Amino acid sequence: MTYSKIAIIGPGLLGSSIALAMRKKQPGAKIAVWARRSEAADEVREKNIADIASTNLDAVVEGADVIILCVPIGAMTPLAEKIALLSAPGTLITDVGSVKLPVVESLSRIFRERGQFIGSHPMAGSEQTGIDAARADLFEGAACIITPEKNSAPHAVDALGKFWSLLGCRTSILAPDVHDEVVAYVSHLPHLLAATLVNLVCEQNEDSLNFCGNGFRDTTRVASGPPEMWTEIFKGNRGQVKKSVEEMIGKLQQVVGLLDDDAAMNRFLADAKNRRDRLKQRK
Amino acid sequence: MTYSKIAIIGPGLLGSSIALAMRKKQPGAKIAVWARRSEAADEVREKNIADIASTNLDAVVEGADVIILCVPIGAMTPLAEKIALLSAPGTLITDVGSVKLPVVESLSRIFRERGQFIGSHPMAGSEQTGIDAARADLFEGAACIITPEKNSAPHAVDALGKFWSLLGCRTSILAPDVHDEVVAYVSHLPHLLAATLVNLVCEQNEDSLNFCGNGFRDTTRVASGPPEMWTEIFKGNRGQVKKSVEEMIGKLQQVVGLLDDDAAMNRFLADAKNRRDRLKQRK
Repeated sequence: MTYSKIAIIGPGLLGSSIALAMRKKQPGAKIAVWARRSEAADEVREKNIADIASTNLDAVVEGADVIILCVPIGAMTPLAEKIALLSAPGTLITDVGSVKLPVVESLSRIFRERGQFIGSHPMAGSEQTGIDAARADLFEGAACIITPEKNSAPHAVDALGKFWSLLGCRTSILAPDVHDEVVAYVSHLPHLLAATLVNLVCEQNEDSLNFCGNGFRDTTRVASGPPEMWTEIFKGNRGQVKKSVEEMIGKLQQVVGLLDDDAAMNRFLADAKNRRDRLKQRK
Repeated sequence: MTYSKIAIIGPGLLGSSIALAMRKKQPGAKIAVWARRSEAADEVREKNIADIASTNLDAVVEGADVIILCVPIGAMTPLAEKIALLSAPGTLITDVGSVKLPVVESLSRIFRERGQFIGSHPMAGSEQTGIDAARADLFEGAACIITPEKNSAPHAVDALGKFWSLLGCRTSILAPDVHDEVVAYVSHLPHLLAATLVNLVCEQNEDSLNFCGNGFRDTTRVASGPPEMWTEIFKGNRGQVKKSVEEMIGKLQQVVGLLDDDAAMNRFLADAKNRRDRLKQRK
């Protein structure tokens, strides 16, 4: 697939990285980036990340083959309403939000007559944010979950998969609600555990951070992520996240029991090791 | 301080890394490594990590200025009893175990008349194990907690601090029981959380590992550590670890409540971010 123009809505870590990756993978495509603040558009221009950088949606969206919304979940709906007035009916539209059911329900309705909207979730975020953290290889080997609805056009699902594959992602397809359940366990729960662990450790002993090794460092890295963004994610996936935290509590209550049974503890740790070792085999 | 001979008991990740670091920091010191299995001693010799590699404790310990026990916690006491018959009264002896109170109590008694035993805990372990994972720079910038008892000789405490500083560690001093409490929170609890999260995720959906991003990867990295070693650590620090898991459960129950209060959730995440960001400022 050859793209003539890609419209990226929001120059954060993911949006800027899409721009950089696309420049590398398909230098002929015109890259247009929309930013809410003119300072951010200036920065995109100064860093030469895009061909067009503007606060004017019309200039960015006009003539685009693909429009990717890379803004916080709470900003998606109002922006989508404006874009829907500008986009051509055949345009492929997606987003990169970490929660899919509410975003897909809202944006599918908005774009029903105005384009082919299908949600995406490239699992390539980081605790870092903004243009400065952007990398052309951010998506290489990363999982990207595509979340069509029952009535999504198969050719549009296929085209979206090819778009993310071009950027380097391993793509999978899940229904929006299944996505939200899986991601509650593999992303939202881990974030809450990291934040809770940091707060617990510091409240127990303010000096403890002086005694941390790489284990603590890695286990809690994501806790440095932006609080506002994560609050929105938890709000958007409240039911599934609550279920995952409650199951984690139940599992930890079992772990308290394992502390009195070395053989059972050893089996528990061996199961975890065998499972976790599978992740070592790929990026 | 110039060392003429360093005796390292056990050629695992920490023991082999001490050998490599000492070679680099003080090339004149003779490095002797004891291994339980002759194959492991052969490997040390083949990799040219030490001047002496042997299964014979006598050859390794004889004439050493410093003896460092780098074996699993459960193997410490029987080995220490043998070493105490061989070591000269003035020798500085330490260990690198992740739990200190039971190790220090046992080894201090064993070495009372036979050397200056003081416990150490260099926080430089990893989920990797063995000679192949060893690195000369493993200790650079790592915290090392030294755990003297009330009657430890001040000059020996000082000498041990200088030993770890030479290898690159930032050293601190804590009583053995305070060490065990701090480390329950910053190391043992994080390990249990990682193992529990991996098991929960895989039991919820075996395919979930296909959808993991770097957040899950980092949060759970330590779960690939050796189960037997960690079972021994939890056994040695059972009371403190149990307390830390129970407090984590209590904190997670509060988090379930925060999921219904976005402003409070945002404050909780902001506290965690501010605290975790402090760790970014140093290695």
